[in-house]
Amino acid sequence: MKDPSSADLRAPLTGERTRERFLQTRRLSQDLVQGLNEADAAVQSMPDASPAKWHLAHTTWFFETFLLRDHVPDYRLYDNRWPFLFNSYYEAEGARLARPERGLLTRPTLAEVLAYRDHIDAAMLEALPALLERHGDLVELGIQHEQQHQELLLTDIKHLFSRNPLGPAYAAAPDASEQRAVPLRWIEGASGLVEIGAGLGADGDFAFDNELPRHPAWLAPHALANRPVTNAEWIEFIADQGYGTAALWLSDGWDWVRQESVAAPLYWRGGGRQWERFTLAGWREVDLEAPVTHVSFYEADAFATWAGARLPTEHEWEAAARNRDPRDGVQLDRAGCAEPRAEAEIDGFASLHGNVWEWTGSAYRPWPGYRPAAGAVGEYNGKFMSGQFVLRGGSCATPRGHLRASYRNFFHPHQRWQFTGLRLARSL
Amino acid sequence: MKDPSSADLRAPLTGERTRERFLQTRRLSQDLVQGLNEADAAVQSMPDASPAKWHLAHTTWFFETFLLRDHVPDYRLYDNRWPFLFNSYYEAEGARLARPERGLLTRPTLAEVLAYRDHIDAAMLEALPALLERHGDLVELGIQHEQQHQELLLTDIKHLFSRNPLGPAYAAAPDASEQRAVPLRWIEGASGLVEIGAGLGADGDFAFDNELPRHPAWLAPHALANRPVTNAEWIEFIADQGYGTAALWLSDGWDWVRQESVAAPLYWRGGGRQWERFTLAGWREVDLEAPVTHVSFYEADAFATWAGARLPTEHEWEAAARNRDPRDGVQLDRAGCAEPRAEAEIDGFASLHGNVWEWTGSAYRPWPGYRPAAGAVGEYNGKFMSGQFVLRGGSCATPRGHLRASYRNFFHPHQRWQFTGLRLARSL
Amino acid sequence: MKDPSSADLRAPLTGERTRERFLQTRRLSQDLVQGLNEADAAVQSMPDASPAKWHLAHTTWFFETFLLRDHVPDYRLYDNRWPFLFNSYYEAEGARLARPERGLLTRPTLAEVLAYRDHIDAAMLEALPALLERHGDLVELGIQHEQQHQELLLTDIKHLFSRNPLGPAYAAAPDASEQRAVPLRWIEGASGLVEIGAGLGADGDFAFDNELPRHPAWLAPHALANRPVTNAEWIEFIADQGYGTAALWLSDGWDWVRQESVAAPLYWRGGGRQWERFTLAGWREVDLEAPVTHVSFYEADAFATWAGARLPTEHEWEAAARNRDPRDGVQLDRAGCAEPRAEAEIDGFASLHGNVWEWTGSAYRPWPGYRPAAGAVGEYNGKFMSGQFVLRGGSCATPRGHLRASYRNFFHPHQRWQFTGLRLARSL
Amino acid sequence: MKDPSSADLRAPLTGERTRERFLQTRRLSQDLVQGLNEADAAVQSMPDASPAKWHLAHTTWFFETFLLRDHVPDYRLYDNRWPFLFNSYYEAEGARLARPERGLLTRPTLAEVLAYRDHIDAAMLEALPALLERHGDLVELGIQHEQQHQELLLTDIKHLFSRNPLGPAYAAAPDASEQRAVPLRWIEGASGLVEIGAGLGADGDFAFDNELPRHPAWLAPHALANRPVTNAEWIEFIADQGYGTAALWLSDGWDWVRQESVAAPLYWRGGGRQWERFTLAGWREVDLEAPVTHVSFYEADAFATWAGARLPTEHEWEAAARNRDPRDGVQLDRAGCAEPRAEAEIDGFASLHGNVWEWTGSAYRPWPGYRPAAGAVGEYNGKFMSGQFVLRGGSCATPRGHLRASYRNFFHPHQRWQFTGLRLARSL
Repeated sequence: MKDPSSADLRAPLTGERTRERFLQTRRLSQDLVQGLNEADAAVQSMPDASPAKWHLAHTTWFFETFLLRDHVPDYRLYDNRWPFLFNSYYEAEGARLARPERGLLTRPTLAEVLAYRDHIDAAMLEALPALLERHGDLVELGIQHEQQHQELLLTDIKHLFSRNPLGPAYAAAPDASEQRAVPLRWIEGASGLVEIGAGLGADGDFAFDNELPRHPAWLAPHALANRPVTNAEWIEFIADQGYGTAALWLSDGWDWVRQESVAAPLYWRGGGRQWERFTLAGWREVDLEAPVTHVSFYEADAFATWAGARLPTEHEWEAAARNRDPRDGVQLDRAGCAEPRAEAEIDGFASLHGNVWEWTGSAYRPWPGYRPAAGAVGEYNGKFMSGQFVLRGGSCATPRGHLRASYRNFFHPHQRWQFTGLRLARSL
Repeated sequence: MKDPSSADLRAPLTGERTRERFLQTRRLSQDLVQGLNEADAAVQSMPDASPAKWHLAHTTWFFETFLLRDHVPDYRLYDNRWPFLFNSYYEAEGARLARPERGLLTRPTLAEVLAYRDHIDAAMLEALPALLERHGDLVELGIQHEQQHQELLLTDIKHLFSRNPLGPAYAAAPDASEQRAVPLRWIEGASGLVEIGAGLGADGDFAFDNELPRHPAWLAPHALANRPVTNAEWIEFIADQGYGTAALWLSDGWDWVRQESVAAPLYWRGGGRQWERFTLAGWREVDLEAPVTHVSFYEADAFATWAGARLPTEHEWEAAARNRDPRDGVQLDRAGCAEPRAEAEIDGFASLHGNVWEWTGSAYRPWPGYRPAAGAVGEYNGKFMSGQFVLRGGSCATPRGHLRASYRNFFHPHQRWQFTGLRLARSL
Repeated sequence: MKDPSSADLRAPLTGERTRERFLQTRRLSQDLVQGLNEADAAVQSMPDASPAKWHLAHTTWFFETFLLRDHVPDYRLYDNRWPFLFNSYYEAEGARLARPERGLLTRPTLAEVLAYRDHIDAAMLEALPALLERHGDLVELGIQHEQQHQELLLTDIKHLFSRNPLGPAYAAAPDASEQRAVPLRWIEGASGLVEIGAGLGADGDFAFDNELPRHPAWLAPHALANRPVTNAEWIEFIADQGYGTAALWLSDGWDWVRQESVAAPLYWRGGGRQWERFTLAGWREVDLEAPVTHVSFYEADAFATWAGARLPTEHEWEAAARNRDPRDGVQLDRAGCAEPRAEAEIDGFASLHGNVWEWTGSAYRPWPGYRPAAGAVGEYNGKFMSGQFVLRGGSCATPRGHLRASYRNFFHPHQRWQFTGLRLARSL
Repeated sequence: MKDPSSADLRAPLTGERTRERFLQTRRLSQDLVQGLNEADAAVQSMPDASPAKWHLAHTTWFFETFLLRDHVPDYRLYDNRWPFLFNSYYEAEGARLARPERGLLTRPTLAEVLAYRDHIDAAMLEALPALLERHGDLVELGIQHEQQHQELLLTDIKHLFSRNPLGPAYAAAPDASEQRAVPLRWIEGASGLVEIGAGLGADGDFAFDNELPRHPAWLAPHALANRPVTNAEWIEFIADQGYGTAALWLSDGWDWVRQESVAAPLYWRGGGRQWERFTLAGWREVDLEAPVTHVSFYEADAFATWAGARLPTEHEWEAAARNRDPRDGVQLDRAGCAEPRAEAEIDGFASLHGNVWEWTGSAYRPWPGYRPAAGAVGEYNGKFMSGQFVLRGGSCATPRGHLRASYRNFFHPHQRWQFTGLRLARSL
């Protein structure tokens, strides 16, 4: 079989559709900060998180740098001092503000950053026809990049508000749902040789370099749970001393649990059967039917061991997700309180896409034949391929339209401020 | 001789004058945040510093707690959840937000905090006549306390803005001065038995508990410099490898210099004879004639050793300052860019009060017979009497009217974000 | 195909051969401490390392606990207090001395630990016939376990002596070798479906649980270098600013290089073309022909990127090593100065086994169908399956007879006090 | 009055007496390591402590460097590489082994260090007549220096053995004593002007530079307890929740207590009325009548506050100790188990000298007119004059003959592995 080259995957989109998606994406980012005051948008609650204002500016810097500066003749930077502020981690782009210091930028103000966005949007719209002829892949990358930051913006605000003893709400609570968690069922997956990676069929035209190349992989016989683990099940794990039983945990996980005194998912408080969780709508009772979220890889792995199961590999997950619509499920459609909730099955699986990112048992490493993209954007994915684990499927905070079956998200095994959950797997 | 009791010192002030000073003080705090946006007022740039908004709220909490709540019948708290947010370090007042988390309070907003201030001001003004009858000392303490936080608010904003690569200005630069540093001269101090501590003469009616009791101390023959060390002199110290010569430094200081790679005062950049410093008016050329500031005790001590001199003891300093007007010199009169500048001598000494806090060689410990005030306010000073050094004289950021000859400020020997400088002394 | 169960793999050995191997192994451990004084054997030079005396005692505790205590009727512990001292990380065995405190055990003395060894050896020899009937797999595990600690003992002593400014020698230097590094050549590997894991053919009867089960894996077309990277090549990497070029490094690796100021392999000193390395025979000139060693995964990965290549996966490595004699190459035959050196090719590859552990690009994770062994020894491997990378092939300090093609060693990506090196690979 | 110069204080001793004291001191150091094995003598149990072998070598290096090398013509160093190993903190003597790495020196061996001692002793004895003519003060300093290290050697060994779960004994337990603690009584001290510092009367000929110059100080009316605080009293403090009551503690102390989970003196285990303490003779029941020891300044200060008293100033202490025999009390006479015990009063005070070092409330700062000694030995005391508190009176581990009324010891306020205790004081 033939590995499609990345060039094939990044075929020019039609100009009109791209322009529309560009505008929609840029608009959603600004909608997301609608309810924030200047301080909400500026404060950084931990080194892993970034201020909302910084997300707005960084995504704009991305377009300015890799499209306007690099590919529009005579383009002049909006402000020569700003690339230092809004470059995230691109070594090829030179010195930059240290990540933990993003929260010191009370200036430029939110209004100034919004004016920057307007300026760049106008320049992009003017340049778009020419850019799409030769750099459509970079335009698309800029849009996808901004969508990723939309999810981060929400999880970062959630973290910030959770640290405020007043527990402020970012948005109104979603309507209550009648849906209950579907009963747990095991679904046998394809075994033997399967194709993994982006590039064929219904997955769409774009893929990050880390989803490539498409390649064969051999799967042993296995089954996946039909739905993610629920809050009710997690409370059983707690009640059964899951957090206090060394034998369930990876060694690093056990160290982490004890050092950080972890005894419940992030954002939970309470005990016994009475648990509250912090949401973007403030403190609310834990929804027993909903998928558990804000758990680390270590917790997910320990839970799976406790349940006599294991985490799926990313290959098993992808094989199950292929030929399904990645736009299904609880995903982000507009600014508001993103939060997982119970869903019905669609063709067997519930919540395969959306709701919660599912920790897999696969370390985040390159696929056979992987090659980072050329230039500074080659730093996008490849250099992070150590020390992290792959998550699959997207979450309630992922902008709908952003996902693919081959989409690989990755975080460190102790991190849990993203909407992270798990789906069980078993070897057969 | 008789040690005046603290009751004597805290004699009721006339109601009208206190009311006026209360209003003035409260107004100045709000003036100080005039040019700040919501984010400027909320961000905490290091654990030692607090957000401007927090200063506004904490000083208000102080009046609400120790006057209104404790001494006004039927007073109801403005918001039951806020004491947790705005108590600084009073163990007797119960659990509270950890100091390094003050910057997470993007809510309540600045407007909400200002409304809180209005509410408390109204309640205080109504209760003031009754309060002054029995608790005039606490009213005065509240005013003095807020004055201290005015200085901190300025130094904390300065620190925040200094960390922003854009170097924003808090206020316009002061007019240039024609005054040059007066030539260095040594002034012999009183030796033998002297009286130290608050309580007699022109120092005014109020004193903190750490300035008491008044007591005799024996001074050996010594002389003080007529003025603080200047920036020009500090540049000589740098040029002479002062920061690289172990023999000049205390052992802890030498460790600090190397660990933190210290090679100039805080807020300096440049080298050779070309130095800039960050001020509340942004980056500006170092004023060679002005007193050096933003140096640590370690640096001050090393400089003194290099100069063949030493730091004065706090007793020597106080003996020199007695019978002088503590309202003289560069001090804070209104919101703006506080910054030291060269001053002429007044009766021998230049800048004894105001301009820069002067590090003394005295560890901050209780004076013989010291007793902390009763109740929670007893935590105000006493519990900090280890690990710190005494500074004397006030600075350009100290509200005029706040100082006394016996006034004892104290910081850790490595700290330098306050307006700290030094005056040399010699044993004779 | 059939996955052989672990029972098949652990078939009873003939009693005589096992007894002999037990005695040989126990004797070698004691030979290794021959040249050490009481302090050499007691000091712990970093938390990752253990004192030689502790290795002697811990391997003995392993036999005492999992064989004598668990399976010999009426066995009484040698000293009830010692399991607390010499349990390494077995949670199921209860509380134990924290790892960084192993160096505090100046008592029991080396003589007392040797007496403990004699006691356990005598008890084991007496019990061996009965033990081999039902617990031959545990006896074998105890032997293999002790062999692993022999390698650690040598690398830990090397680390300790390297930290002594006097640079003491543990043993005499090996004779100089005439052998030069063979020219670099690429050898195409098997692609398509291959069998991975222990259990068939010439690999012998024993395998750790992490080498199981045997399973199919799909390999993409690739080639491996015929020999490990040499010191001469590493010096080119240094000369070409390899340590200063961000683009070559994984993000975590780049952080590590700068934080630790890494600029050469561990134990190197010098610069330009003049490099010395610390060996078990003290400081010696770097042997340009020998495989580079004491490099981290991060360094190995950066070197491979610099060389336009990559690290092999552990599957690629194992496919190449299958059907070769794992007893070939530079391995540990007796106490002395273990150190890599240039070797000739055997059937194409040089130094596939022995000389240096070869970092692979594979994260250390369980193989499909992996099940940890039952009981406390189930903690042997499985709980470490996060955050580490797989190394293959053994080193000059691995006791000959200990290795297999399927043997999986694992360390954290920053660690480099083991004899770690690399072999390049390429996708075809 | 006249400040005696340091020259006066360091008048030449008679040659014979010095020679004898030199030999005695050198011999005692070696006696102290009699019961230690090579590892006991080499391991460093924490950065504050040094290995016994290092103490033996460092004190020898002191004589070699400041007497033989500096003042004996044509002297050649015993080993050129050793000054790097055995210089403690003398910046003027150049680069040296980092303090926390002293425990890595398994070589040179104890026997080699003892041979070094023999060599230096012989050279010193030969040079002594000439040295005493011009450098008697340095010879004396070397002896005093070694006596200080004898005390440290004992406390460092105690710490090492305490960290061993086997709790080994360094020496046999002392005979039980019938003596009970004398009842607490307050003794009024001299007030008004007193003379402080070395140089007059019975204190002997030698003083460290930090005891100089002699100077007047003004004391307020006060009283001192006739004896140190006892273990029985400390248990009352514990029972009354002393360690859990914030109001008793300095702010830094309270942070320390909570961070380190301190709930009893160092080396205590047990609870209620059943406490054991670790001694140089192993774990033993707490002696209720003996002075409490191994408490930090923070604990001592909190205890004093709890008792309605305070710590004495160093001036108050010295005024009480003047004209008393500093050779009285429990001090070190020979190698063995040093441990405080109840003593009878002598002229009013019990245990003013010996038994436990008494924390004073005085920060360790220079006395008026202080000048460090010239040359490298000027680093002996002066550079440590920040961040520490003064202790007075010596302990059960101080070699008898080493103390003076003006003797100033100093440690950081959290340190407690020395034999530190306290005596209460009160203002009158």
